[in-house]
Amino acid sequence: MTGILAGLRIVEGSAFIAAPLGGMTLAQLGADVIRFDDIRGGLDSDRWPVTKDGRSLYWAGLNKGKRSIAVDLRNPKGRELLTALITAPGEGAGIFTTNMPARGWLSYDELRKKRADLIALNIMGTRDGAAQVDYTVNAITGFPMVTGPANHRGPVNAVAPPWDLATAYAGAMALLAAERHRRLTGQGQRIVLPLQDMALAATSALGYLGEAAINDVDRPRLGNEIFGTFGRDFRTKDGKYVVICIFSDRHVDALAKAGGFARAFAAVEKEKGVDLKTDAGRWTARAELCAIIEPWVAAHTAGEVGAVLKEAGALWAPYMTFRELLQDKDAVHDNPLFTVIDQPGIGRYPVAATPLQFGAAPRDAPRPAPLLGQHTDEILSGILGLPAHEIARLHDEKIVAGPR
Amino acid sequence: MTGILAGLRIVEGSAFIAAPLGGMTLAQLGADVIRFDDIRGGLDSDRWPVTKDGRSLYWAGLNKGKRSIAVDLRNPKGRELLTALITAPGEGAGIFTTNMPARGWLSYDELRKKRADLIALNIMGTRDGAAQVDYTVNAITGFPMVTGPANHRGPVNAVAPPWDLATAYAGAMALLAAERHRRLTGQGQRIVLPLQDMALAATSALGYLGEAAINDVDRPRLGNEIFGTFGRDFRTKDGKYVVICIFSDRHVDALAKAGGFARAFAAVEKEKGVDLKTDAGRWTARAELCAIIEPWVAAHTAGEVGAVLKEAGALWAPYMTFRELLQDKDAVHDNPLFTVIDQPGIGRYPVAATPLQFGAAPRDAPRPAPLLGQHTDEILSGILGLPAHEIARLHDEKIVAGPR
Repeated sequence: MTGILAGLRIVEGSAFIAAPLGGMTLAQLGADVIRFDDIRGGLDSDRWPVTKDGRSLYWAGLNKGKRSIAVDLRNPKGRELLTALITAPGEGAGIFTTNMPARGWLSYDELRKKRADLIALNIMGTRDGAAQVDYTVNAITGFPMVTGPANHRGPVNAVAPPWDLATAYAGAMALLAAERHRRLTGQGQRIVLPLQDMALAATSALGYLGEAAINDVDRPRLGNEIFGTFGRDFRTKDGKYVVICIFSDRHVDALAKAGGFARAFAAVEKEKGVDLKTDAGRWTARAELCAIIEPWVAAHTAGEVGAVLKEAGALWAPYMTFRELLQDKDAVHDNPLFTVIDQPGIGRYPVAATPLQFGAAPRDAPRPAPLLGQHTDEILSGILGLPAHEIARLHDEKIVAGPR
Repeated sequence: MTGILAGLRIVEGSAFIAAPLGGMTLAQLGADVIRFDDIRGGLDSDRWPVTKDGRSLYWAGLNKGKRSIAVDLRNPKGRELLTALITAPGEGAGIFTTNMPARGWLSYDELRKKRADLIALNIMGTRDGAAQVDYTVNAITGFPMVTGPANHRGPVNAVAPPWDLATAYAGAMALLAAERHRRLTGQGQRIVLPLQDMALAATSALGYLGEAAINDVDRPRLGNEIFGTFGRDFRTKDGKYVVICIFSDRHVDALAKAGGFARAFAAVEKEKGVDLKTDAGRWTARAELCAIIEPWVAAHTAGEVGAVLKEAGALWAPYMTFRELLQDKDAVHDNPLFTVIDQPGIGRYPVAATPLQFGAAPRDAPRPAPLLGQHTDEILSGILGLPAHEIARLHDEKIVAGPR
């Protein structure tokens, strides 16, 4: 590997999104990330979406560039092999897990008996270790009650899972922070990251709890309007949608130029007594701004509106479906982020590398996700130093498995 | 500072969410994070939500534990001071910015003339440097077209900003990766992280682009249903809502026990010919499962339903508003994540520390956000070594400012 994290090894025991995506983030930066699963597959080995042949596109997306080892986790010998792998000597070893148990062979206390400076990240549901997922964590944050159409009653769930994403990247960050600490002090440690606390900390950071506490209000459901400035969706003549926002002076001028709104905006400023160059002014006059923009967008196609907004330097974007995005020239086909790769058992499609570009290391093209157990033998041999006959015996005894 | 990142210094030039939250993430782990702003304030100094006195709760949320220096960024002497601060010697210095310019005094090329091993993270909108925000990036990902009530037409924006959150934590991770690289090689570097690429990479990771490419479908809008397994919101007798999910065998049994559904679930399995212990089985029979659960939830209060689900170990959560969350005993008042602090100019309210618990360093209680320019003098003196009379002159000439 040539990435910025070359030399770092992570053993990952995971499922669903947060832990696998955290591990993949490090793998795509050049770390050797070894995901272990039970020989029968993990909780998410076949998770939907799947292809017509039942291959998981979910697994393929979240495990790119990792190596996979499949071991019978119920077998004492299998557990022994994994313990040896997790605690193998080497500068960069760490473990990244979903719900690491408090007791037993995979607990931090047991593992560090074999390697005192082990670093382990334990992603858990709540701080008490109770199971939680993005959906349940999201429910208590308050966001579902302010998401969705303004006239809607009841909660609206997030589809892009904000707390899994945050936990994945914050978890990867935490492992590097601990690795820095070990480099400076020689000391390993266990890190705990509860998904629920991640969501609560971010909700606090975003000011929602402060607003509830200090202003004693629940922010109303605002539909697609952006609170405290200007932004909303607009429908085009051909039934598409665009989002148009204003976050700075420059965006006011650009939008005015794009739609020929300069005079109308000035009239709004005069009538409402506001300055559209301020957040508060835009927010106060948002209905009037919409009344100006709406008919203009409705009278043009998405192509026409987009061309003019882009030319003027406005802050806007078209709404796309996943299939439209897939076919988008700028976002996907001309974007060096994406490479068409052949994912074994699934086929060829554009797949993203890391979004991070490091000046000191070229960005590696994305590598496929492994098949379950694809690297079992090379890991047993290359890292644990087992001879071929012993690996063969482990297969015979069904303690390990190769690719299925 | 006593945190895990003690010794690391970051100078942050930022606005809005991604960069300030990334900087705060490191500050809450013990890094010395110095946010610089123009003496007139940054783009987000007064951003809503604000208190009745116009103090920004948004700023207070996203800048906790940082130091603030306020400098006239249009003044050459002001720029010189900041250049000296950013490139000051020290093991851990790095810079974390939103839209670092390609040219001029704040460009990486200019800064590294003063310090060859400088690490800089440049968060930008698109890979070409065009402005983008979470809302515009989200529009093209495809998610708004599948979020919200199943019968809704048109896009539904995210309120919790998934791509800002991802960029914040991935950015913090990237700075640590570069610091590791510098520790190993002595080499600094510039890192580029486009918000749009972050969103596209995550959308790819989550399998949505693979599904569009391989299965050639746009996933339909599913309302609050969780794709490929079982989960949805349910309305209680007292007009509250709960989310109930099934992600594993254990959750099927727990839910059956909570509601007394064992017989009904068995009947569904027989009638539909499915196994509710599989994702596919639950997905296929989701309407039947809802028909069993819905009347049960509707016949009980949120308190009753919650008590029974919790007792049984089901995967569930109540939906809360921000004010309900603020008053929640378990999530906030009894949660060591939160401390009631006094935010100058705003007041006392519960504020979150980092959600990360490192075994090798106790978690620090959250510290307030600085007032703009609160640490100007101590930074000029402590880091740049300026004598008191020179600092006084900088104030007189309005090149720097103290707290406002």
